[in-house]
Amino acid sequence: MQIERPYLLFLGDVPDALAAKTAAGIVDWRRDWCVGQMRLPGCNADTGLPDMTVAEAVAAGARTFVVGAVNAGGILPRHWVASIVAAIEAGMDVASGLHMRLGDDPDIRAAAEAHGRRLFDVRHSGERFATGKGVKRPGRRILTVGTDCSVGKKYTALALEAEMRARGLDADFRATGQTGVFISGRGVAIDAVVADFIAGAAEWLTPAADPAHWDVVEGQGSLFHPSFAGVTLGLLHGAQPDAFVVCHEPTRRTMRGVAHPLPTIAEVIDLTVACGRLTNPAIRCVGIAVNTAALAEADARAALDALAAEYALPAVDPVRFGVGPIVERLVAEFPS
Amino acid sequence: MQIERPYLLFLGDVPDALAAKTAAGIVDWRRDWCVGQMRLPGCNADTGLPDMTVAEAVAAGARTFVVGAVNAGGILPRHWVASIVAAIEAGMDVASGLHMRLGDDPDIRAAAEAHGRRLFDVRHSGERFATGKGVKRPGRRILTVGTDCSVGKKYTALALEAEMRARGLDADFRATGQTGVFISGRGVAIDAVVADFIAGAAEWLTPAADPAHWDVVEGQGSLFHPSFAGVTLGLLHGAQPDAFVVCHEPTRRTMRGVAHPLPTIAEVIDLTVACGRLTNPAIRCVGIAVNTAALAEADARAALDALAAEYALPAVDPVRFGVGPIVERLVAEFPS
Repeated sequence: MQIERPYLLFLGDVPDALAAKTAAGIVDWRRDWCVGQMRLPGCNADTGLPDMTVAEAVAAGARTFVVGAVNAGGILPRHWVASIVAAIEAGMDVASGLHMRLGDDPDIRAAAEAHGRRLFDVRHSGERFATGKGVKRPGRRILTVGTDCSVGKKYTALALEAEMRARGLDADFRATGQTGVFISGRGVAIDAVVADFIAGAAEWLTPAADPAHWDVVEGQGSLFHPSFAGVTLGLLHGAQPDAFVVCHEPTRRTMRGVAHPLPTIAEVIDLTVACGRLTNPAIRCVGIAVNTAALAEADARAALDALAAEYALPAVDPVRFGVGPIVERLVAEFPS
Repeated sequence: MQIERPYLLFLGDVPDALAAKTAAGIVDWRRDWCVGQMRLPGCNADTGLPDMTVAEAVAAGARTFVVGAVNAGGILPRHWVASIVAAIEAGMDVASGLHMRLGDDPDIRAAAEAHGRRLFDVRHSGERFATGKGVKRPGRRILTVGTDCSVGKKYTALALEAEMRARGLDADFRATGQTGVFISGRGVAIDAVVADFIAGAAEWLTPAADPAHWDVVEGQGSLFHPSFAGVTLGLLHGAQPDAFVVCHEPTRRTMRGVAHPLPTIAEVIDLTVACGRLTNPAIRCVGIAVNTAALAEADARAALDALAAEYALPAVDPVRFGVGPIVERLVAEFPS
């Protein structure tokens, strides 16, 4: 899979910024791969890229129209099809992270065939996975987990990779979602794998490696989310992490898409250890990553200090202050 | 999906009886739907049905050739294809519980097209599921869980349905695996659902019902199995059971297909409650179902009595002594 760059990011008419998190993630980490964004009337998300029509994007060099929005169920709304067909007719390939395959829409399929353009469904791996084996593999692994979906697990993992590399560690980000695949150019959208193979796909993604090598594995969902916890558990077992970081968004009142309250960070640590020790008895928490955007800087630092004291763990805001203290803890706990 | 009866059960050349558990389950519960079994050289399983060739089975009235064997990964072995093609040429439909679709084999597909026969892949639901919502639904639900895979969860659920109906309760078995679908004529093979939709599929399978109605939900895998625990957790959250029964096979030394030891019954109860209360805070264990086949009858009764005393729960062998005490506990704890 080689998706041509640069991208035009299509946001559709999503109701909020979180629904455009695929596009936002690409912009956060690969802004130079994007010429602009395209939005439909009613769209409540904004990546900060210039708004463009299909024609303007093609004139600016765009090669791929990226459907950078998600929705519950992964369905492609009918009223997005015309924009996708227009992009194909203007000469762009199309890449999507939705569950529904682009080619399952007859108009999109016909346009792609007529114009010789390629359709990429990054959620659908062509790989045939085995079932998980649970055998300990050499190499080290760190996983981000969350009190909820959409609390910064991907961002934290990418920030950890960058910081670990900056300090000379041998570290590779392992994408488990469509945005991560767009950003890193590889990985597997683990929520789209057949249920029997979740752990097996995670084992494939984080294979045996040099003993000093770190896989930095992007987490998915939450063990406490009633829609997606099965994915989270299979990923935890397959990734067999030595270490994990809990990601948290303190302003969230209910879990994403459902009416359930969020668990505490302590509950997440305890259940992650209780379940994770099945495939790695030495699993431990090495840090807490909190989105403090709602707080003034002094208040944010005070809140992180309080968490660090309560849990005896480094507590950071990866966006605001970086993940340095977590990497320091990792180096101390896992000497070369 | 209406699979024509009677069946010829094909066992291939599976290495042990467990690998033919689909066929064995059909024979246990629907022997009168089967004319015979067909085995290849080297087969180490036996359902007790008469061995037949394809021609003999057709002469005996067989309408569907059922691939009643499973293997890790769900792949269709190449050397089984000739038997399947022969069955099609002799006039039978074919039904399979493997992950791999029958029609993905070009010889099978060509034969089915040439002879106008139907191919049923019971692991692949045509249903489009939503993601789980975790909202409490009216009606009551009981789920079988296990210390391992293949420890009697389906058998126990079917026995519970039969015993509950015999006592006048309104109860329906809900199949979550291919054998259960063959036996009950409906359900969903939940291990074949896309990972994001495990809980949603379980919600679809056990919809809102009359407050006195019981869904008796077939469990899958084990929260302690490193290959399949994600399926188990998604099913637990989606089924939101009021009650559960722990199934156990005491002679098992390692978990099925892997090198991990089995958890204790207490560990299974504790983790099932810890995770299950997310979607049903009142979840409780109402019994233990043990396969005592390795013990003499007096020893079996003594072992069950000891378990019952240790856990303060009814402990039964569903095959040998029935599930009466568990249904009595259920009636006492959930009065109409």
